[in-house]
Amino acid sequence: MTLHGKSLIAGLLVESNTGSFHAISPLDNQPLEPLFHECSLDNVDLALELADEAFAVYRKTSAEARAQFLEKIAEEIIALGDELLQRAHLETGLPLDRLTGERGRTVGQLRLFATVIREGSWCDARIDTALPDRQPVPRPDLRRMVVPLGPVIVFGSSNFPLAFSVAGGDSASALAAGCPVIVKAHRAHPGTGELVGGAIARAAESCGLPAGVFSLMHGSGAEIGVALVKHPLARAAGFTGSRTAGRNLFDAANARPEPIPVFAEMSSLNPLFILPGALKTRGQQIAEGLKGSITMGVGQFCTKPGLIFGVGGADLQAFTGYLESAIETSMPGTMLSPGICRSFHDGLTTMGKIAGVIPLANSDATANPSKTHGAPTIYATDTANFLEQHALQEEVFGPYALLVTAQDTADLIRVAEKLEGQLTATLHGTPEDIAAAGDLIAVLERKAGRLVINGFPTGVEVSPAMNHGGPYPATTDARYTSVGTAAIQRWARPVCYQNFPQTALPLELRNENPGNLMRQINGNFSRDAIQD
Amino acid sequence: MTLHGKSLIAGLLVESNTGSFHAISPLDNQPLEPLFHECSLDNVDLALELADEAFAVYRKTSAEARAQFLEKIAEEIIALGDELLQRAHLETGLPLDRLTGERGRTVGQLRLFATVIREGSWCDARIDTALPDRQPVPRPDLRRMVVPLGPVIVFGSSNFPLAFSVAGGDSASALAAGCPVIVKAHRAHPGTGELVGGAIARAAESCGLPAGVFSLMHGSGAEIGVALVKHPLARAAGFTGSRTAGRNLFDAANARPEPIPVFAEMSSLNPLFILPGALKTRGQQIAEGLKGSITMGVGQFCTKPGLIFGVGGADLQAFTGYLESAIETSMPGTMLSPGICRSFHDGLTTMGKIAGVIPLANSDATANPSKTHGAPTIYATDTANFLEQHALQEEVFGPYALLVTAQDTADLIRVAEKLEGQLTATLHGTPEDIAAAGDLIAVLERKAGRLVINGFPTGVEVSPAMNHGGPYPATTDARYTSVGTAAIQRWARPVCYQNFPQTALPLELRNENPGNLMRQINGNFSRDAIQD
Repeated sequence: MTLHGKSLIAGLLVESNTGSFHAISPLDNQPLEPLFHECSLDNVDLALELADEAFAVYRKTSAEARAQFLEKIAEEIIALGDELLQRAHLETGLPLDRLTGERGRTVGQLRLFATVIREGSWCDARIDTALPDRQPVPRPDLRRMVVPLGPVIVFGSSNFPLAFSVAGGDSASALAAGCPVIVKAHRAHPGTGELVGGAIARAAESCGLPAGVFSLMHGSGAEIGVALVKHPLARAAGFTGSRTAGRNLFDAANARPEPIPVFAEMSSLNPLFILPGALKTRGQQIAEGLKGSITMGVGQFCTKPGLIFGVGGADLQAFTGYLESAIETSMPGTMLSPGICRSFHDGLTTMGKIAGVIPLANSDATANPSKTHGAPTIYATDTANFLEQHALQEEVFGPYALLVTAQDTADLIRVAEKLEGQLTATLHGTPEDIAAAGDLIAVLERKAGRLVINGFPTGVEVSPAMNHGGPYPATTDARYTSVGTAAIQRWARPVCYQNFPQTALPLELRNENPGNLMRQINGNFSRDAIQD
Repeated sequence: MTLHGKSLIAGLLVESNTGSFHAISPLDNQPLEPLFHECSLDNVDLALELADEAFAVYRKTSAEARAQFLEKIAEEIIALGDELLQRAHLETGLPLDRLTGERGRTVGQLRLFATVIREGSWCDARIDTALPDRQPVPRPDLRRMVVPLGPVIVFGSSNFPLAFSVAGGDSASALAAGCPVIVKAHRAHPGTGELVGGAIARAAESCGLPAGVFSLMHGSGAEIGVALVKHPLARAAGFTGSRTAGRNLFDAANARPEPIPVFAEMSSLNPLFILPGALKTRGQQIAEGLKGSITMGVGQFCTKPGLIFGVGGADLQAFTGYLESAIETSMPGTMLSPGICRSFHDGLTTMGKIAGVIPLANSDATANPSKTHGAPTIYATDTANFLEQHALQEEVFGPYALLVTAQDTADLIRVAEKLEGQLTATLHGTPEDIAAAGDLIAVLERKAGRLVINGFPTGVEVSPAMNHGGPYPATTDARYTSVGTAAIQRWARPVCYQNFPQTALPLELRNENPGNLMRQINGNFSRDAIQD
């Protein structure tokens, strides 16, 4: 397959004169062919208009039709074969085995959402049957379910070129809900985006869906992204990336005459607390685990633990020694892009200059700038300094963590109270530690979307009970997850149908319950049909 | 009982030197005793700090404890007896029988939310059990439920001095969820607010809850409201009122360093479409029903039908005659406040000056300005003019509607497509009309939160299937309802507990399922316990 470098709007390849760029391979810092054409603001209009037209048809498709579409996308992605993995490797520097796994996750997500909408209960159907004889006034027949919002803008993320990009979790959940999707491809891996975008377009065509159900737009700056979010026909947006870019989109969406939700997942330090018993009995094991979690994917996961807290003393000193050895023997790795590598090193420089911060450990091996290397690095400080220097709560994206020494366990709670919002927070402790940590857990419940005991936060399961979200700045909307089956809820809103004849109702709300959904009938959960 | 005119912060009466005001009775335009003291920005700080402190305790209370608190509030409100109704009558001009009914709805809502949290499944518990042998990596134990957001700011509405005010639906649902509540009392009925606020404070005390779980703040301008929403410790806000005030709060909340959700219910015209068959066979009946719905509560319901569409011809002409007679024989009524009455008359003046708008009918009786009267009024125009004059989509709060003549049924769809977001949309039609109206219904599903067939939108049921919400400007967040049991979902966010020992988990997520909740276990709905 030869890449064409064009945006794909409702099945049509579009090339405008707005500008162009090459992807740069982080493996050697060299530009990759072909040239990618940035789309214009006119292209944005066209994509939204065709998405809105397609929505009129797509929102009325059956769950089965949408499930087949998702499965067809998965099939088309697999059919791209090694070429997809090779291109993604060149564009992101991620190893082929990781990308193979990520492709599995990507098609797994598409298939998971197919099962969610086939089962159907996600639409939260609620039926209150009429009470014609009620005094003083009768109760009408009321039936409520969620319906899709409309065209959704998805921003591909840098760190998951497949699983959180063109056909990633945001797109899969939005398409499952019944929303057309317009993806702004990530500029660091536009070729990967083009290949996957083509797969989606082919799937839409072979499923007989209107082509406007999917578009892929290229652009190198913030302009196209903001224009997509501000377009009157856009109904919601999903984003994974930096705090600055996410807030920028959030602000643009809220300044619209008619505001729309932006689900931006932005920034998280993922604090990890080592409680005294664990520090005494499992210090080496925790240090080894931390090394794995901090350096996995060259530290480029949203859930990488970036803050480690422990109470000072001999046990913490021993742990620190283990962590130093682990990090010193770890290897530098190619980061996702030259820009991310630059930001990583800038971040390390900034942190290193903060008063009271000392370098603790870094990889013994030399990082190779021409291979866009980032080297695992640990700094250290104490809680008093951490509380004083708010800049220590900035995320450094890459294989970096800050070890913070506390005076005692009360000090751990004080510092937890001052943390910003997080995707995750982790505790390591013996059963006795955990039993005594109720107050700390209570604080962390207010700070994070996921609490982990005796594990590591990286490795985000795609399942019903997962929550990948959290208070600001982890995300712009802590009420929703971007990973797991509940992610579909972001793209829907309730509608109540009052006194509708059966034939005018959506199937999900009809008496006979043809899809066998779990519904709330007069407040009681049931899969039963309603007797006429 | 003598009213004291002070704010009530965590059980303490607070009087500051910021300013003061009297309520004005709309019944005679005379000030009512006592003087009400506006709270200061320092008072705002204090209320939020005490609410946040109380939250640490309140969020950990059992559902049973919170249910008893809600029921105790209901009991204390009933114990206020006629004095509450009399004061509300003086402050709002609403008749005593309406206020008696509204009190019933208010205590009914409190008791309904008590049953919702006792049943408990609202917390959306999801459990994915561990798969220790899974390849290539084990799956950890994941358990997710929603937890309360934190202190919630509630703005009392003018038109429901009991049911959507101090102990109204927003407060009841937030307290049920486990959130402390700070109410900004509506300046038009501060005495009613004081009485109800006292009832809540007594209930909190007798239930042994921290006093900071509830505060009531008086203020006459926007300043205190904005300060409450911008306070760093505020976590969400609920508002019912004007579009300008709602948007102002929404913008303030989104401009915060850490944005918070504002659920503002603001503005809706509640379009009503009369389809040809119904116009032919039931014109008079629909005209009578419309009169009731437009004039009920002097037109001061959020769901009052303010736009009526029908296809021109002899049937519409006959219907127009019926509507004219109905409106001419209707009586003016006392509006909620002099300000609202002024806005109503200003709105009528503005609408009347718009080119192509003609007066159709108004009450034969003379409105008495000293009794703050508003008189039922209908204007008329056609769809071409309606589409041209966007100002006709402004809400006129009061007993007013605009009758719009369409050319044909296709014209009805065209005009529906140009409507802004609505709380409700209504169709009147014969079975044949409704069967042929699929395209119109599909458009209205995108525009409104509730669709009504052959009924009237006023009279909002408080039940599981109700949706009282809709696309902007009906509300700032179409994904949530402010009426019905689902309203509790506004005040919560999910947290996932990974690999937690049983004793560290909330009861809702423990294996034995002590509350017998409906949960999702590995994606399947079940009330079963999990075998260890």
